[in-house]
Amino acid sequence: MGMMTGEQYRESLKQLKPQIYYMGEKIESVVDHPAFVPHVNAAALTYEMAQAPEFEELVTTTSHLTGEKINRFTHIHHSHDDLVKKVKMLRAIGQQTGSCFQRCVGHDGFNAVYSVSYDIDREKGTDYHQRFIKFLGEVQTRDMMVSGAMTDPKGDRSLPPSKQKDPDAYVHIVDRRNDGIVVSGAKAHISGAVNSHGHLVMPTSAMKEEDADYAVCFYAPVDAPGIIHIFGRQTNDTRKCDCTIDQGNAEYGVVGGEALVVFDKVFIPWEHVFMCGEYEFAYELVDRFATAHRQNYGGCKTGLADVLIGTCYLLSEAQGTERASHIRDKLVEMVYLAETLYCCSVACSCQGFALPAGSYIADPLLANVTKLNVTRHVYEIARLAQDIAGGVLATTPSEMDWRDPEIGKYVNKSMAGVADVPAEIRIRMVMVVEAMTCGTTLL
Amino acid sequence: MGMMTGEQYRESLKQLKPQIYYMGEKIESVVDHPAFVPHVNAAALTYEMAQAPEFEELVTTTSHLTGEKINRFTHIHHSHDDLVKKVKMLRAIGQQTGSCFQRCVGHDGFNAVYSVSYDIDREKGTDYHQRFIKFLGEVQTRDMMVSGAMTDPKGDRSLPPSKQKDPDAYVHIVDRRNDGIVVSGAKAHISGAVNSHGHLVMPTSAMKEEDADYAVCFYAPVDAPGIIHIFGRQTNDTRKCDCTIDQGNAEYGVVGGEALVVFDKVFIPWEHVFMCGEYEFAYELVDRFATAHRQNYGGCKTGLADVLIGTCYLLSEAQGTERASHIRDKLVEMVYLAETLYCCSVACSCQGFALPAGSYIADPLLANVTKLNVTRHVYEIARLAQDIAGGVLATTPSEMDWRDPEIGKYVNKSMAGVADVPAEIRIRMVMVVEAMTCGTTLL
Amino acid sequence: MGMMTGEQYRESLKQLKPQIYYMGEKIESVVDHPAFVPHVNAAALTYEMAQAPEFEELVTTTSHLTGEKINRFTHIHHSHDDLVKKVKMLRAIGQQTGSCFQRCVGHDGFNAVYSVSYDIDREKGTDYHQRFIKFLGEVQTRDMMVSGAMTDPKGDRSLPPSKQKDPDAYVHIVDRRNDGIVVSGAKAHISGAVNSHGHLVMPTSAMKEEDADYAVCFYAPVDAPGIIHIFGRQTNDTRKCDCTIDQGNAEYGVVGGEALVVFDKVFIPWEHVFMCGEYEFAYELVDRFATAHRQNYGGCKTGLADVLIGTCYLLSEAQGTERASHIRDKLVEMVYLAETLYCCSVACSCQGFALPAGSYIADPLLANVTKLNVTRHVYEIARLAQDIAGGVLATTPSEMDWRDPEIGKYVNKSMAGVADVPAEIRIRMVMVVEAMTCGTTLL
Amino acid sequence: MGMMTGEQYRESLKQLKPQIYYMGEKIESVVDHPAFVPHVNAAALTYEMAQAPEFEELVTTTSHLTGEKINRFTHIHHSHDDLVKKVKMLRAIGQQTGSCFQRCVGHDGFNAVYSVSYDIDREKGTDYHQRFIKFLGEVQTRDMMVSGAMTDPKGDRSLPPSKQKDPDAYVHIVDRRNDGIVVSGAKAHISGAVNSHGHLVMPTSAMKEEDADYAVCFYAPVDAPGIIHIFGRQTNDTRKCDCTIDQGNAEYGVVGGEALVVFDKVFIPWEHVFMCGEYEFAYELVDRFATAHRQNYGGCKTGLADVLIGTCYLLSEAQGTERASHIRDKLVEMVYLAETLYCCSVACSCQGFALPAGSYIADPLLANVTKLNVTRHVYEIARLAQDIAGGVLATTPSEMDWRDPEIGKYVNKSMAGVADVPAEIRIRMVMVVEAMTCGTTLL
Repeated sequence: MGMMTGEQYRESLKQLKPQIYYMGEKIESVVDHPAFVPHVNAAALTYEMAQAPEFEELVTTTSHLTGEKINRFTHIHHSHDDLVKKVKMLRAIGQQTGSCFQRCVGHDGFNAVYSVSYDIDREKGTDYHQRFIKFLGEVQTRDMMVSGAMTDPKGDRSLPPSKQKDPDAYVHIVDRRNDGIVVSGAKAHISGAVNSHGHLVMPTSAMKEEDADYAVCFYAPVDAPGIIHIFGRQTNDTRKCDCTIDQGNAEYGVVGGEALVVFDKVFIPWEHVFMCGEYEFAYELVDRFATAHRQNYGGCKTGLADVLIGTCYLLSEAQGTERASHIRDKLVEMVYLAETLYCCSVACSCQGFALPAGSYIADPLLANVTKLNVTRHVYEIARLAQDIAGGVLATTPSEMDWRDPEIGKYVNKSMAGVADVPAEIRIRMVMVVEAMTCGTTLL
Repeated sequence: MGMMTGEQYRESLKQLKPQIYYMGEKIESVVDHPAFVPHVNAAALTYEMAQAPEFEELVTTTSHLTGEKINRFTHIHHSHDDLVKKVKMLRAIGQQTGSCFQRCVGHDGFNAVYSVSYDIDREKGTDYHQRFIKFLGEVQTRDMMVSGAMTDPKGDRSLPPSKQKDPDAYVHIVDRRNDGIVVSGAKAHISGAVNSHGHLVMPTSAMKEEDADYAVCFYAPVDAPGIIHIFGRQTNDTRKCDCTIDQGNAEYGVVGGEALVVFDKVFIPWEHVFMCGEYEFAYELVDRFATAHRQNYGGCKTGLADVLIGTCYLLSEAQGTERASHIRDKLVEMVYLAETLYCCSVACSCQGFALPAGSYIADPLLANVTKLNVTRHVYEIARLAQDIAGGVLATTPSEMDWRDPEIGKYVNKSMAGVADVPAEIRIRMVMVVEAMTCGTTLL
Repeated sequence: MGMMTGEQYRESLKQLKPQIYYMGEKIESVVDHPAFVPHVNAAALTYEMAQAPEFEELVTTTSHLTGEKINRFTHIHHSHDDLVKKVKMLRAIGQQTGSCFQRCVGHDGFNAVYSVSYDIDREKGTDYHQRFIKFLGEVQTRDMMVSGAMTDPKGDRSLPPSKQKDPDAYVHIVDRRNDGIVVSGAKAHISGAVNSHGHLVMPTSAMKEEDADYAVCFYAPVDAPGIIHIFGRQTNDTRKCDCTIDQGNAEYGVVGGEALVVFDKVFIPWEHVFMCGEYEFAYELVDRFATAHRQNYGGCKTGLADVLIGTCYLLSEAQGTERASHIRDKLVEMVYLAETLYCCSVACSCQGFALPAGSYIADPLLANVTKLNVTRHVYEIARLAQDIAGGVLATTPSEMDWRDPEIGKYVNKSMAGVADVPAEIRIRMVMVVEAMTCGTTLL
Repeated sequence: MGMMTGEQYRESLKQLKPQIYYMGEKIESVVDHPAFVPHVNAAALTYEMAQAPEFEELVTTTSHLTGEKINRFTHIHHSHDDLVKKVKMLRAIGQQTGSCFQRCVGHDGFNAVYSVSYDIDREKGTDYHQRFIKFLGEVQTRDMMVSGAMTDPKGDRSLPPSKQKDPDAYVHIVDRRNDGIVVSGAKAHISGAVNSHGHLVMPTSAMKEEDADYAVCFYAPVDAPGIIHIFGRQTNDTRKCDCTIDQGNAEYGVVGGEALVVFDKVFIPWEHVFMCGEYEFAYELVDRFATAHRQNYGGCKTGLADVLIGTCYLLSEAQGTERASHIRDKLVEMVYLAETLYCCSVACSCQGFALPAGSYIADPLLANVTKLNVTRHVYEIARLAQDIAGGVLATTPSEMDWRDPEIGKYVNKSMAGVADVPAEIRIRMVMVVEAMTCGTTLL
């Protein structure tokens, strides 16, 4: 036991038997199916970089529970330095993947549940915190990847959970037994769900007394009976199955591999239940998680922006436009927008503080500002990238045509740029920009 | 002869034998192949709406050549009213298609070549204008759809056409014969190219004396020997082949169906040559075309925005959020952004003026302002739409899963909104927003 | 009688005896007091340009009442051409003044009351429209300048007029007599009020039955007993009294010369009452006026922007920075922002329509879009202008120091730019930019 | 000796005899003249807050030279904590003054010269660093306020210093003597210059060998022979002399009190010369200073924004609009814009690093990002504030009219808001918003 390599992570996934559906098909192995491989690769990199000496300081740390060296994604922050290093780790990995690597969500869930379970116990005399510490110890020791599952489908958003026509619009307790609880409902667009070892499920909004059955937090293995994953569509998702270059980022994909996770009468033993009806703490848990997660965006998204900005610069070189002042201005503007995001993530981290449980949280106001900036700047960065790339972004012939013995030469001629850059290189760069700025990646 | 119905347009395409390649396949019939059908449908609507009494005033007009009733897309503008009606026609059609309908490009080409050929003749004593009038008469009488083919691949953009390593980086004359000229090169991302009757080819930039062979303007039938079309990739293009709902806009597609049009030693008879070496007029032709085309964007894009804004409003109703002030503010902002574009198109039209040839052109400065606003507002409108739609935009399960007898019920439950809106309706709306805001449609 | 010259306008003001207070002083003559002279000059230009052949087509037209040639500011629009020419007139005058010339407000009031009085009569059987036509005939024949007085102080904005603690928070009827009505209250920040011949007073919001006494519209001469004007402070207003260059625009000022107009039991004869209790039409009148006024902003503000952009260009030449790409980009951006405003005003004008009274109104939605763009673009234009001008904008020594025999040479040396531009010219340009971008002129 | 109180600071200024001119007048005492009092008050607060226990941790620290407690404005940063505390100190003081307090410029100059003099010595074998340490010791012990004087008038900005028509366009050495140097030229818009004890003069741009005489850095007492201060005009500056409320911020003013500082053959003894011809280091000094200064803006400007946002909220309460969603949205947007600036300043501080001299500097890229955000956000915050305040911002009657026994009652009535807020309070808030958003304060 201890930290896994990427290969060990892939092996560990093969031991599990989750129910996964995608485009009308039941998926046997996420590790092998081309629609899932890039997402597995991105998550695997969080294991691989922990083994690399140059990233050791960022991606590993010491467990406050065991004193053992652990992957930072399983760590509970205990200092400003922890918070800032999280942001730097996310940027470093994003620079490698150019895509979502999914593992931050569970990490933020660990930190949220750790501190809130402490608060519940203090006020209610429960023992959730000790249960969670025991579970977390296992996560750290086995180096588990756990999804953070918060967003419910929500149905009619003008109504609270208990007033929904269909009770399954929110995850809720359907039975309380001696040995545990039974839950039903669903969690929507959960990143990395299908290639995680399990799910950390949290409520999604503030609740009142009548919503008590919806105030539930627990862990469930990915292959627990009654859990069904329906993998969502992605922009250009079928390209993962029929070509390489046209994917833009064949290695790591373009999004986090989100899935709908359905809970159909799933049994959860008490040891994995961390909130069970304490509706007064539902908002606190959402808020702690949200702050932890908003803190991330100026890390990972800035790493992705670094890839995009670099690609745009190289593309302008390939097109012979890198000295044009309007191109340079756009590149500078992209850097400015990206670094502003980074500033926000760094600032909310170093202005964080200790919670009663002793763990550290980012400054909530500044984390919120981070998120607000992301929702604007990412679109603006994409706009500028598409402006630099030009119309070819939306009309490049397919890889199949480029490889075609008869007409491939025409594609080559039309995609050639300056004398010493082969068409293939320009095509690849264009496809990276398309993959990183189109469709769902804007979200 | 005379104006065609949509069906006659489709029939007319079947009579042609263009060479078209797409994703490694040679396409036999654009009218029947699912990757092309939506684009054919959108273009066909420009014929069908001309037959509809309620659109007659916008989509038809009277030929200044023959006095016959013609489709406005084949008309030479002769008044402010013509210019404004063009904008209103584009918005009206865009409201129907929610997608590019391609036929404006050739229309703008007609108007550009009409006026510039007059100017060349006046200065050079040539007879291009009469040639063009004869050709235009045929276009009007036969109600032809003609692409406007201007953008060359351009290779190294820091070099002029005659200095490129590969002369085919720009379309150029490779031979002058008694009966016509022979041309080679390519035109990139040409909207509607594969479902047009022919191409109106124009130069793409200002030129100097040494570039004279590149100062060439001509018409060529879509199936002229030596012309090869390579249809470009689009965001989510394969969805056209494997599903319906997931397309978002299965009827009309999401973009203009752009293709790379290769000219490999294509013979052009003199009657279809409208510029042949008069490099001093290359910039004028580009400029006239650009003004005509920039004028359009506040028409068509506003029509599309109307579809998107309406969908977002309905979607907010389905989600129970239509009364939230932040949702209302976003919808108002979208309207404001769209109507600003419309104002620009209307203003440049009614501030247009007559050229020496007697035809009318929009005000070039204000047309340029239109274009500048489009390049910003379209992204902002998309951002707001995605904000209203939420995360489901990027993660909705596939149509196949929704239709699945076993797991379809889970998709239904998770996609249900307020009590009286079925999940299918919400899914369809989400897919419309995805289709209209993702990827290549941002361009 | 007939159109006045600027001099005749000034003479006509001298015949009036309005009560005006400013900075603790009772003002005897607005034509002579330095705090008012620039505003009188700007208004006078609307008379002078009507006499100039090159502006005749824009600034004069033919009365639909008398068939006589009149100043357009007294005209009721009867065509799209009228609406568009109004916008062009405003831009042309704004290019001369670089400041508000005030006369549009009454003009918009004329058009609003003209059409609404017709609608009231049609529904209520009153004779307001004929009264108004008679009044308007006098306005046209005597070429009067009339303020448009709409905005009430409003007190507590969460309450309607009839619920205010102080009834004078809105203008209202305090007595109905055989020969007319008596009104009290005030109208706030009325442009050109002190140098007008009289005030056209209109209600400021939608009203209900209990607000009927507040639904009142009338004309009152500027020196009617009980009317008191309190002239508002302006940014840098005292510079009008103690220096010339430091004013930036000593000829025409920087704002419209707004005043608080108090009505303390003012008697209005019936012939000048155009609405008296018809609360159902209050909103319509506000709306008509608002549309007419919003239509203007892309005219006048664009004229001002032309002055500002030109000054910034000359200033960059004086500073030797006119070839820097970041300066050129900013100038282009300023043009783009200004012309977008112009597009909106032109578009709402040419998309206007006839009202039941036969007069024309701009398209309300597009006029509103015009206003929304103005509230954003004017600040952005100011920001860019200040960026080009640099820190000197806020720190230039006073004219008195520059004229000082001892230290003036140091000011000269520090304000000198390129070799052939004297410091005085640069100082003057800097002060124009300061005057046009600072403080109240942003509104 | 040791830290001064505000009173001692004022007393110390009275001991000096600087030459100061303003609006054609020679100023005898900045401590007593109403045009200068607010600026003196703002600077004095940097002394007073150092005495206040609640600000002690931010505004005081320990000298690395003497181990004595000193005012932070005289400190050389030696840790991330120092850098972050500087930002927090600036915000805290800005929240008190609502205006520039000037003392940061010299502080940034100290840090820049400290580290660059070290670098020069190391490469050139000079002893500038020791000279500077000795000078700095005096600054700390006597708690001096020193201006940072960098920006030259620059004349023709397309030419380097040595090519200017007038050599005095940049400060330069006119004579080298045994006991020191003689300098001429000027520094423009120097904050706090007239109420400082002396000036720290630095070069303003990168230089080449031929510009060596312009590569000069030195300290000069404010009353050194040959130094002449010409105080610049400010928006609404004369209000400081003729009223109180209309100033908006009568206590602390609205800008930094910038002056043109002329050097006419000023003698500088060697002990106060810190660079003398080492042109290769001119850029480094500019860059170090710029980084230190850009770091500040998210501190001080955010403090000012806090005042403005709070005032706008109170004003909306007074106007009865505080519950309107469009007002709340604007307030939230202002907070978002301000906190983004704060994030940037905090982030560049905690990502700073040690220089060879051992002192700490902020991260240059992120400090630049801070500055870029300030140049945009400050205008946007002002726009929103003016939007909330409304038209009254530009047209409120003067304080004299409000105090007038006859017409004051009308002003009172028109400026009254909700029932329990007196007109005076509303007027004062309006004037604060005007003062903080108009004119030169936007820079």
